[in-house]
Amino acid sequence: MLDLRPILFILGILLTTLAVAMSLPALVDAAIGHPDWEVFLASAGLTLFIGGALILTMRGGDMAIGIREAFVLTLGSWLGVTLFASLPFVFAELNLSFADAFFEAMSGITTTGATVITGLDDAPPGILLWRALLQWLGGIGIIVTAVAMLPMLRVGGMQLFRMESSDTTEKVLPRAAQISTAIGSIYFVLTAICAIAYWAAGMPGFDAIAHAMTTIATGGFSTSDSSLAAFANPGVEWVAVVFMIVGSLPFVLYLQVVRGRPMSLLRDTQVRWFLSVVLVLVIVVVLILAVSQNYAPGLSLRLSAFNTISILTGTGYTTAAFDQWGPLALTVFFLIMFVGGCAGSTTCGIKIFRFQILYETAATQIRRLVRPHGVFIPYYNNNPITDEITMSVMSFFFFYVLVFVVLALGLSALGLDFLSAMSGAATAISNVGPGLGPVIGPSSTFTTLPDTAKWLLSAGMLMGRLELFTILVLFAPAFWKP
Amino acid sequence: MLDLRPILFILGILLTTLAVAMSLPALVDAAIGHPDWEVFLASAGLTLFIGGALILTMRGGDMAIGIREAFVLTLGSWLGVTLFASLPFVFAELNLSFADAFFEAMSGITTTGATVITGLDDAPPGILLWRALLQWLGGIGIIVTAVAMLPMLRVGGMQLFRMESSDTTEKVLPRAAQISTAIGSIYFVLTAICAIAYWAAGMPGFDAIAHAMTTIATGGFSTSDSSLAAFANPGVEWVAVVFMIVGSLPFVLYLQVVRGRPMSLLRDTQVRWFLSVVLVLVIVVVLILAVSQNYAPGLSLRLSAFNTISILTGTGYTTAAFDQWGPLALTVFFLIMFVGGCAGSTTCGIKIFRFQILYETAATQIRRLVRPHGVFIPYYNNNPITDEITMSVMSFFFFYVLVFVVLALGLSALGLDFLSAMSGAATAISNVGPGLGPVIGPSSTFTTLPDTAKWLLSAGMLMGRLELFTILVLFAPAFWKP
Repeated sequence: MLDLRPILFILGILLTTLAVAMSLPALVDAAIGHPDWEVFLASAGLTLFIGGALILTMRGGDMAIGIREAFVLTLGSWLGVTLFASLPFVFAELNLSFADAFFEAMSGITTTGATVITGLDDAPPGILLWRALLQWLGGIGIIVTAVAMLPMLRVGGMQLFRMESSDTTEKVLPRAAQISTAIGSIYFVLTAICAIAYWAAGMPGFDAIAHAMTTIATGGFSTSDSSLAAFANPGVEWVAVVFMIVGSLPFVLYLQVVRGRPMSLLRDTQVRWFLSVVLVLVIVVVLILAVSQNYAPGLSLRLSAFNTISILTGTGYTTAAFDQWGPLALTVFFLIMFVGGCAGSTTCGIKIFRFQILYETAATQIRRLVRPHGVFIPYYNNNPITDEITMSVMSFFFFYVLVFVVLALGLSALGLDFLSAMSGAATAISNVGPGLGPVIGPSSTFTTLPDTAKWLLSAGMLMGRLELFTILVLFAPAFWKP
Repeated sequence: MLDLRPILFILGILLTTLAVAMSLPALVDAAIGHPDWEVFLASAGLTLFIGGALILTMRGGDMAIGIREAFVLTLGSWLGVTLFASLPFVFAELNLSFADAFFEAMSGITTTGATVITGLDDAPPGILLWRALLQWLGGIGIIVTAVAMLPMLRVGGMQLFRMESSDTTEKVLPRAAQISTAIGSIYFVLTAICAIAYWAAGMPGFDAIAHAMTTIATGGFSTSDSSLAAFANPGVEWVAVVFMIVGSLPFVLYLQVVRGRPMSLLRDTQVRWFLSVVLVLVIVVVLILAVSQNYAPGLSLRLSAFNTISILTGTGYTTAAFDQWGPLALTVFFLIMFVGGCAGSTTCGIKIFRFQILYETAATQIRRLVRPHGVFIPYYNNNPITDEITMSVMSFFFFYVLVFVVLALGLSALGLDFLSAMSGAATAISNVGPGLGPVIGPSSTFTTLPDTAKWLLSAGMLMGRLELFTILVLFAPAFWKP
């Protein structure tokens, strides 16, 4: 039997936090006298009521949870929070359908950045703030999940980042709380610095705060339909470039930097690889622009750096219709959607460390073919990669391809063209934001898709965000056997 | 130091065989008085001269070869044979460029079936027979390679099909010869039965023989620009369906059937999975046709069975523009290109047994997540799958995706649109034949592509045919160290 009590207790805490967050847009809308404030207040009230009730009825007793409870907790808390987070979208002036509202909330909480809302430029501040807050909370939420939960659950090679050798799940709550606090503070400070930088570069105050929250979370929601292109401000774009990268690095390493080990960031192999990948890709796209478009070199660099890093990290801001830059650019942008940033960051995708492990394992495999009796051991960060890690990462890669294929098939079955189906599946599973092509590309939204496609994409976003296995285990019969 | 002598000796034998094969089209063209007979005779003469010279100069002495020699032998013999096989295409009346001729020869010998030739219906019989012969020889060539060489080289999980536990390569030559003879006889008899069946169904004699050779080889070259649609004959198509499946099963099992164990074919787990996959896909495509097209049920079944099995097995015949059957059909046909048939058959692709092993491993992985202290072992054909096999298959899958991505990027860089680049890369690496879409789809040829794209696709075909690793090892520095 699953012990649901601690799970529902933690969900209660999360919902209460969400209710507090909901009161911020209520305040903002009330301040300018927009009627949406009542919607936010009512949603906050309902969420607080349910959250409080869960806390009160489920508290006390033994809070230790087992492996299976930890899986259910991870999925349940993300799903529960998304459900309540979609309330304001349903009842606000926008009048979204439930499918649209859930899609928007899921895209927010998973830091994807795909949207079904048009007319953002004239939208009331409450709803804009709510979208930004969702991504900001989703960003810190996934860092905490990735640091405290996933390594313990040994999901897709995340056991590489286990902090203690202990397998026990008993200390998960205090440890999670401790880590959340430390990393949360860093997250908050980085967001504040980003907001100030945006503001200093010329963004209005509200936009600066909203964008800071969605930049550090590599989320990608903007306050304008034309994303960051609306500001037509190179300074703003370079600030975004810097903080999209900041959001893509492992946040535990910032903790070490703060604790007086500044070099640990640059000595990390994953960080080095990520920065190298960024550099190479930006140069490649600059070269593509040089051949295919007639831009000045400075503009090419700016467009390449901003859009390449935005899609690579899964942020999803755009300043150009990069799917119109010719066939090579289209394929490059399609492929980099799958990459993502570092483990323990706010990014999604397959992530750099997995490519490192896949590469090392495959290279070792080739060495073994040549010398069948030799002993070859792959290394990661100077530590040997165990067979367990290898299997874990390789299974993750296989499932990633499999889920992508299923999503693409589903979207095709719903009538989406080849490019939309492929890029839609990729952008969902990797939490990027825009797809490619005329339907869901960087110059469009997801509004025109059928409801079923929105549900499918929502499921894909959550699967990707929770590193697949957290959801896939629930389909295993073994999971439900006592 | 690599010992090239036995490698060149075997190449000499293969070239001599090729020269003998070349004299058949010479005879056919001479019989009807077409001037191409001189081209075939001259090509045969040159090939025989080189082959004979290699045999005479390299014979004698110790013929035992090491692992590295075996890799070089595998790649070198396929590349050398393709080079000489392209001679008739260069000098015949068609007047192909060298890039076109090499592409056509590679597409033949790898049993891919992509073509750069239009006007097949009016082409002289010599060139049509040569294309069919190339695929037929390529088909038996890959079966022998897969049965005798790849398991020893432990390429991509092929060690599962090792016949003896011995690692030694000393007996490779006599064993290969013995197996070649036995399986070659079966291959010949099956081809003859297929030809008779085609003829009985109403195909003219020459077409029946040519198509029998490219059907059993799951090759796909036809004697008409409109492929098997030219015959507009349901009987012919059902014969093709049966023998495309026959060509997709493990030929060693036919050997067991002949030796009095008829049930070994149906008891094999790979064969069962393959037949189930075929059944499910044919039904799915029938359903797609029922929804999207207005065909009679019988016609739907005929179109689905023929085209689905043709693309799944990598044969590449077509009787319809299946890329015009709507978005879902397009995605389905794109994806099934990667699948292929059974190991030890004439098909290419990832192959059924690898999907079985990937699935079993990943499922075991999930069971382990739920019960971290449990012991779970994946099975294949009632035998436990060793970690070595798992790693091997998973590395193969990773490299397959990687090579596909590199090919797709390369084709995009050469200006091909998204669908052409993606499907072109897939059809090459999986040795299917046609791509998808207006440029290289089932109603087109590869003629219009730039030469660089043809070289790239030729490389992709050979990589796929030799199970990637056989070529990838040559890029490993370890391979070249003494």
